[in-house]
Amino acid sequence: MKIKSFVFIGGDKRQLYAAKATQSEGYKVYICGFDKLNEDWGIEKCSIKNATELGDCFVLPMPLTKDGVSLNAPFSNESMLIKEMAASFAARRVFCSMKNKLTAMEPQWAGADIYDYSVREEFAIANAVPSAEGAIEVAMREYPGTVHGSRCLVAGFGRIGKVLAKMLNGLGAEVVVAARKRADLALIFALGYKSMEMSELIACPKPDLVFNTAPALIFGAKILAKVCRDAVVIDLASAPGGVDFDAAKRLGVRTIHALSLPGKVAPKSSGEIIKTTIFNMLEEDEQ
Amino acid sequence: MKIKSFVFIGGDKRQLYAAKATQSEGYKVYICGFDKLNEDWGIEKCSIKNATELGDCFVLPMPLTKDGVSLNAPFSNESMLIKEMAASFAARRVFCSMKNKLTAMEPQWAGADIYDYSVREEFAIANAVPSAEGAIEVAMREYPGTVHGSRCLVAGFGRIGKVLAKMLNGLGAEVVVAARKRADLALIFALGYKSMEMSELIACPKPDLVFNTAPALIFGAKILAKVCRDAVVIDLASAPGGVDFDAAKRLGVRTIHALSLPGKVAPKSSGEIIKTTIFNMLEEDEQ
Amino acid sequence: MKIKSFVFIGGDKRQLYAAKATQSEGYKVYICGFDKLNEDWGIEKCSIKNATELGDCFVLPMPLTKDGVSLNAPFSNESMLIKEMAASFAARRVFCSMKNKLTAMEPQWAGADIYDYSVREEFAIANAVPSAEGAIEVAMREYPGTVHGSRCLVAGFGRIGKVLAKMLNGLGAEVVVAARKRADLALIFALGYKSMEMSELIACPKPDLVFNTAPALIFGAKILAKVCRDAVVIDLASAPGGVDFDAAKRLGVRTIHALSLPGKVAPKSSGEIIKTTIFNMLEEDEQ
Amino acid sequence: MKIKSFVFIGGDKRQLYAAKATQSEGYKVYICGFDKLNEDWGIEKCSIKNATELGDCFVLPMPLTKDGVSLNAPFSNESMLIKEMAASFAARRVFCSMKNKLTAMEPQWAGADIYDYSVREEFAIANAVPSAEGAIEVAMREYPGTVHGSRCLVAGFGRIGKVLAKMLNGLGAEVVVAARKRADLALIFALGYKSMEMSELIACPKPDLVFNTAPALIFGAKILAKVCRDAVVIDLASAPGGVDFDAAKRLGVRTIHALSLPGKVAPKSSGEIIKTTIFNMLEEDEQ
Repeated sequence: MKIKSFVFIGGDKRQLYAAKATQSEGYKVYICGFDKLNEDWGIEKCSIKNATELGDCFVLPMPLTKDGVSLNAPFSNESMLIKEMAASFAARRVFCSMKNKLTAMEPQWAGADIYDYSVREEFAIANAVPSAEGAIEVAMREYPGTVHGSRCLVAGFGRIGKVLAKMLNGLGAEVVVAARKRADLALIFALGYKSMEMSELIACPKPDLVFNTAPALIFGAKILAKVCRDAVVIDLASAPGGVDFDAAKRLGVRTIHALSLPGKVAPKSSGEIIKTTIFNMLEEDEQ
Repeated sequence: MKIKSFVFIGGDKRQLYAAKATQSEGYKVYICGFDKLNEDWGIEKCSIKNATELGDCFVLPMPLTKDGVSLNAPFSNESMLIKEMAASFAARRVFCSMKNKLTAMEPQWAGADIYDYSVREEFAIANAVPSAEGAIEVAMREYPGTVHGSRCLVAGFGRIGKVLAKMLNGLGAEVVVAARKRADLALIFALGYKSMEMSELIACPKPDLVFNTAPALIFGAKILAKVCRDAVVIDLASAPGGVDFDAAKRLGVRTIHALSLPGKVAPKSSGEIIKTTIFNMLEEDEQ
Repeated sequence: MKIKSFVFIGGDKRQLYAAKATQSEGYKVYICGFDKLNEDWGIEKCSIKNATELGDCFVLPMPLTKDGVSLNAPFSNESMLIKEMAASFAARRVFCSMKNKLTAMEPQWAGADIYDYSVREEFAIANAVPSAEGAIEVAMREYPGTVHGSRCLVAGFGRIGKVLAKMLNGLGAEVVVAARKRADLALIFALGYKSMEMSELIACPKPDLVFNTAPALIFGAKILAKVCRDAVVIDLASAPGGVDFDAAKRLGVRTIHALSLPGKVAPKSSGEIIKTTIFNMLEEDEQ
Repeated sequence: MKIKSFVFIGGDKRQLYAAKATQSEGYKVYICGFDKLNEDWGIEKCSIKNATELGDCFVLPMPLTKDGVSLNAPFSNESMLIKEMAASFAARRVFCSMKNKLTAMEPQWAGADIYDYSVREEFAIANAVPSAEGAIEVAMREYPGTVHGSRCLVAGFGRIGKVLAKMLNGLGAEVVVAARKRADLALIFALGYKSMEMSELIACPKPDLVFNTAPALIFGAKILAKVCRDAVVIDLASAPGGVDFDAAKRLGVRTIHALSLPGKVAPKSSGEIIKTTIFNMLEEDEQ
C-alpha cells in the first residue's frame, strides 16, 4: 500500500517540525493535539477521533509520555490517555519512541504495527549534533570567558564526545578528550585532539570547561576538588549523571546537568531527525 | 620609573577581570568604585581620594562613560564625575578608552599622560573573538535549528567576519561570505569559504542565519524580502547598523541588533584583552 | 621480571625509529640485521647470535617477511632464516607482526612468548594517520590542481575514511563520503561532511579526486566511466583493491593503487606506532 | 567592442589550463607556441603570424621570459623574440606578467593596451593556495614523520602564512606562527594558532617542520643551530630567501628553498587563477 498521509499526534515543537518536514516531501499531513497552538504552521489539524480515518501512518511524540498515563501533548487542551487510544490503532502503522513503555502501559498496543524510531542507531548519532551544540550554548552562557582559547576537557568519546570535540576544536578551544579504551585513545589522537586516559584524570591540567558525556560516575569529590575547582562542569549524561552533584555543591564547583538538549535548543533539527529516521524505516520496509 | 602598582577605577566585570589578570602578573592592584561589589575577588579596594597616592598606573573603564558626565561605574554607590577627577591625575599615567571624549569633557585631562587602549589595532582584533562568539551564542539561542548544517551568510570580511566565518565553519555550518573587494573575495576562497560579491547579494540562495559585520546599510527592504524572509538576521555593526530594521519589522523578518557583545558575553576575555593591550603599550614605551 | 633491554631484529627505517623511540624511554636498545646501515643512529648493533643474551624483549619487523622464508631485513647483508631463528627464542618475549605466518612457518616459534602488535585495534587506528596523509601526498603529486577547492569523494568511513575526510576538509576540499550503513551516513553528516549512499554512487557529481578505502569492488567499469572519467582515483584497499584496474586502463581513467603507505611515507610515525603498541601490551601484561 | 576570441601565446601547462578555462566560458580560444605539445587539449593552435588577426585579446605567459630575450615558451620549437613581436600588437589588448620588463625590453610594447595580471592583489592572494599546498607537499615528502602531530613553525603571517597555517592546522599539526606586528599576533591567536614574537624565535620549542614565508633573513646561524637542528626547514621566500643556507649546510640542517611552487605543483589551479584575474580586469574595464 502506497503511503499518502501522516498524522502527528501530540508532542511539542519537534513534532511540528517533523510534520512540516514530512509535508514538504509531498505527503498529506495532519497534526492532532495542537488546539492550543496559535501560530499558523500551515498544517491541517484534526481530532483524535478522525485521526485513524485520515492517516496511513501515525507518529507519536518524543518523549512518549511525561506522567506515564497520558501522551506528552503540551499543546493539547485535553489530556490524551494512552490506554484509551490503543484500540483505534490496531493493525495501523505507528511510529513512536519508548515502544516498551507503550506496550507495557496497554497490551492492546501490541496489535498495532509499531516502529520505534528512538532506538535506531542513526537517530542517536544524528541527535549528537543538537546535544553537542546545546552543550556549547550552555558553556557560552555560563562561562565568563570565550570558548575560543579555553581549555576544554571532554570525558568520553562516544557519539556526543566525537561531535563535541570537533565543534570545540572548530571554535578554537584546546581540547583534551579522556577515554578508557586504547582504541579510542588512538582515534582521539588521529582526529587531532589531545588524549588522556580516564584513569589519570586526577592529573589533568586545570580545564576551564568540563563536559561529561560518559554514563558513569567519573567526576567524584576527589577529581572535582583537584581538577574542576575553577571550571564550569556540564554533565550531559542522563540521570543520575556522571558528576557527584552533592560534592560539587559542597566544594563550590559550578555544575550544570544539561539534559534533553536536542528538543530544547534545536526543535527544528530534532524534528527533522525524527522525520528522517521514520523515512529510513519505511524505506527498509519496502526492500 | 619601575611600575609597581595599578588602580582600576570604575567599570564593570571586564574591569575586574583586567585587574585580576594584572595582579596575577605580580603587580600590586587596587580597585576603586566597587563598593557595591559583594563577591570577594581577592583584590584590595581603595577610594578615589587615595587612588593617586597608591598607584603608578590608572585604568579607566570601557566604555569611559554612559551619561557623558560621570565615569561608567555600575558597582559604585556614588557617581564619579569625570570633570572633578581630572586635577588629581596631572602627569600621571592613565589608560583609558575614548581619549578624545575625556579631554573634550575636561581639558585638564590633557595634563595627564594618557594612553588610549581602545584605539589600538590589536585591541580591536582581539575583541573580534568575543564578538564572533557572542554572535554565535545569539544565533544558537534564536535559531530553532542547529548552526551545524545551517546555511550562514556573513556580510563583510573584516576582523569580525574573518573570525566568525572560521567559527561557523568549525561548527559545521555552510558558510558564504559576501565582500566587495576582489582581494577579499580571493582570501575568502583561499581560507576555505564560499565567496559572493556584495553587489549580488540579492541572488544569494536563502540562508538560515545572516550575520552583518559591515558598517553600511546592506540589508535594505529588497534584500530582506527576497533573501532573508525565513532567516534570523543578526546585525553586529554599531548603530545605525547595517539592517533596515523598520523594513524588517514590516516584512516580519526576525532581526537582532547585537551590540557590545564582548563585555556582555565574555567579560573575562574582554578584561584580559584590556590588560594585554595596556601591557603592550607599556612595553613599547620602554623601548 | 623488570624489562631492561630490547633487541630490534630486521626491518627497515620503521624498525629503526621504533628502536630509537624505545631507547629514548630509557631502555638499553640493540639493533640486529643492520650491518648495511651507514648513518649513525646512535643505537648499538648486535649479531643474531648475541641477541638472545642481550635482550629481554625482541621485536620482529613489519612486515615479518617478504619471501616467506627469511626475515624482512633490507639492511642486512645476510638473509636471516625464520626457521633457524626459532629455537633461540623459546620462552622469550617476542613482539612481531603476522604471528600466524610465523608459527605456520616453523612450529617451534610457538614456544616463544609471542605478542602480535599488528593485530591490535589501536595499531590499526594509529596507522590510519600515515595512510591518510600518504594518500593526500599521492593526490598532491598526481592531481594538477590543488586539493584545496577540489571535489573529493571518499568511499568508506572506517578508520582511514574518518581520518582522510578530516584532513581533506582541513585542506579546504569539498568532501563527500559514501557509505553503506545508515549509522555511518548519520555520523558523516554529524562530523561535517556531505554523505552519500554507496548504492547511489553512480549519481555522484563528478569528483576531481576519488579515494577508495573500502575492501570491496566498488569502482567497477560503470562507475569509473560515468563518475571518475576525469578524476584521479587512489585506491587504498589492500589487494585486490576496490577498483577494476583493467576497466580503468581501458577507459583511460587514471588510477593509483597506493599500498603500505605508512612505512613508505612516514617511517618515523610508523615506527613510533609500533613502539607505542608494544608498550601498551607490556602495560596490560603487568596488570 | 565585444570580446569574442583569445590567443594564449607561449607558456607552460599553466597557460594551457588558462586557455582551457577561457574556452569553457564560451570564447573562441587559440594557443600559439605549442607545436611541441603532443597531447590533445581540444584547443586550436595558431601561428604567431595569424595570432593578431584571430584574437581580440592576447595572453602572454607567466613568467614572461626566462632568458630576458625570448618569450618563455617551453612547448615551442622556435624561440619567440619579444622584441620582434612588439609591432604587431600596437593598440591590441595584451595581458601579461612583468609589464615593466616587457616595455623595458622593447619600448614599442608601450603602444599595446597592456594589462599586467601578475601585479593584481587578488592574483597574489589566490596563488597563496598552491604555494601553501606545494609547501605541504614538500614537507610530506621530506619529513619522515607525518605532518599530523608534528610541531610546525610558520614565520610570517602574510598571504601565504595565513593559508599555510590553516592547512597545517587542518591536517592536525600543532601550529606556531611567528610575526612582528602586534596586530598580526592578535589575529594569529584569534584564528586559533599559537603566536610568538619574531624577536623571540630563539626561545621557540624545537619544531619538526619550519616554513619561512617572510622576505627577510630570519633564520640565521644562531636560530638554525638552536631551534632548527632537527627540523626540516622549507623556505618559501623568493631569492635570496630568509634562510642562511651556508650556515645551514655547515650545521647540517636540512633546508629546501621551494620557489615558484604554484606553477610546479598545481598548473591547473595556477592557470585558472590567471584566467580569473584577466576576467576581473575585463569586467572592471567595462564599468
